[in-house]
Amino acid sequence: MKQLTIIKIGGNVIDNSANLHQFLLDFTALPGDKILVHGGGKIATELGESLGVEAKMIEGRRVTDIETLRIVTMVYAGLINKNMVAQLQAKGSNAIGLTGADGNIIKAKKRPVKEIDYGFVGDLDEHSVSATTLDSLLKAGLVPVLCAITHDGDTQLLNTNADTIASSVAVAMSALYETRLVYCFEKKGVLKDVNDDDSVVREIKTDEFEGLKADGTVQGGMIPKLHNAFEAIKKGVSAVYIGKADELNELAEGTFGTKMNP
Amino acid sequence: MKQLTIIKIGGNVIDNSANLHQFLLDFTALPGDKILVHGGGKIATELGESLGVEAKMIEGRRVTDIETLRIVTMVYAGLINKNMVAQLQAKGSNAIGLTGADGNIIKAKKRPVKEIDYGFVGDLDEHSVSATTLDSLLKAGLVPVLCAITHDGDTQLLNTNADTIASSVAVAMSALYETRLVYCFEKKGVLKDVNDDDSVVREIKTDEFEGLKADGTVQGGMIPKLHNAFEAIKKGVSAVYIGKADELNELAEGTFGTKMNP
Repeated sequence: MKQLTIIKIGGNVIDNSANLHQFLLDFTALPGDKILVHGGGKIATELGESLGVEAKMIEGRRVTDIETLRIVTMVYAGLINKNMVAQLQAKGSNAIGLTGADGNIIKAKKRPVKEIDYGFVGDLDEHSVSATTLDSLLKAGLVPVLCAITHDGDTQLLNTNADTIASSVAVAMSALYETRLVYCFEKKGVLKDVNDDDSVVREIKTDEFEGLKADGTVQGGMIPKLHNAFEAIKKGVSAVYIGKADELNELAEGTFGTKMNP
Repeated sequence: MKQLTIIKIGGNVIDNSANLHQFLLDFTALPGDKILVHGGGKIATELGESLGVEAKMIEGRRVTDIETLRIVTMVYAGLINKNMVAQLQAKGSNAIGLTGADGNIIKAKKRPVKEIDYGFVGDLDEHSVSATTLDSLLKAGLVPVLCAITHDGDTQLLNTNADTIASSVAVAMSALYETRLVYCFEKKGVLKDVNDDDSVVREIKTDEFEGLKADGTVQGGMIPKLHNAFEAIKKGVSAVYIGKADELNELAEGTFGTKMNP
């Protein structure tokens, strides 16, 4: 089975042009088939402020109203995605920038309104990702660069969590490839001691996860991140890596950061 | 040789949601392989005004400075392109929205500064379009939807005339397909009498073009449009059609509008 690497980056890489340049060089140098998934960063917030569109929050959670959807569509799918593609092309990577609407690659469902109406936010399920279309792009020698916009198949674009896109794509592609999933974030990995950036836990096996939650090693925002990672592994992804983007090659090879194993 | 239809639409279709809806239905119903090329419309101008970015004009010609390039990248490649793709998907067309940077489909050259510095505007030549990549997308069952943004292969995105993109794509694809090119614009076709919307010239052969210019039938902005059309025919496009979007099927079959023949 051929190898495929799915890499997710967020605002800490996108918002700093020097970091982004180095990351895209490292990404281009990474051997084999690959897919890049990117989040938003602060540009969408800045554009919203310039246009007088305030970030809507309900109980501390961001809501995507129709104005915010317009802004993230412009910034994620237009400005960030296309500039990233142009940079990758210049570095020798045959990138193709896509939303989930393009080629119907990711069809989401608008999040149902319960206590909170999140607005135009899309949730994914096991039927959301079209592995066949992504595979035909990879076979054509292209490198898909996915932004965090999907659609519902009924004309509506939807704002969708980039971490979730990355894991759903990795799971779906596991039917066709030996798939590894790399989450780049601001820390070197899962830390034994949150105050010591060098106390990286090198490896976590599925059956160790509960213990690490119980003893407090994994806490706060890391819990849903790792939960997603182990879900992906349970559904066929070979391994999930989490760490800093600035050591991408070592991270993807498992010699740096935290590796989640079956 | 398989048939391929390239259709170009402009602001008069994009800016009116009812027109756009009907056009996309007709486009979806059109048989065979096809590519859609779209221009901008007034949304970019409106966003520019909201952001306090004034349209820069030099000697009556629009200039794409860095702020304007940001805006057209957001609006053309993001807002317009992705909403159009989501609508086409809902209508059953497997659309994939692209700039020229994606898959290096259209590599342009920044227009050299002579009397006027047009800014970040791209010009195309006979090597600009990658027919191979477009062909592999068509072979994967996808319908490319191209906006008027290209790149220079060296990280720079460029604003590029959508008419020129349509004719360059049609010419390049003629090596692989029997290609017809359809320009949708605000009139029913080339008019014998500009004041009579029903005085459509049904057919113009290459050797008749000079005579129609001389007798004033073709004048003003129609001269460069038809010049491009006959250039495309000279370079291998089977036929070029020009007319209104609201009779798309008849237009593409040559039973409506003006048909330019070799």
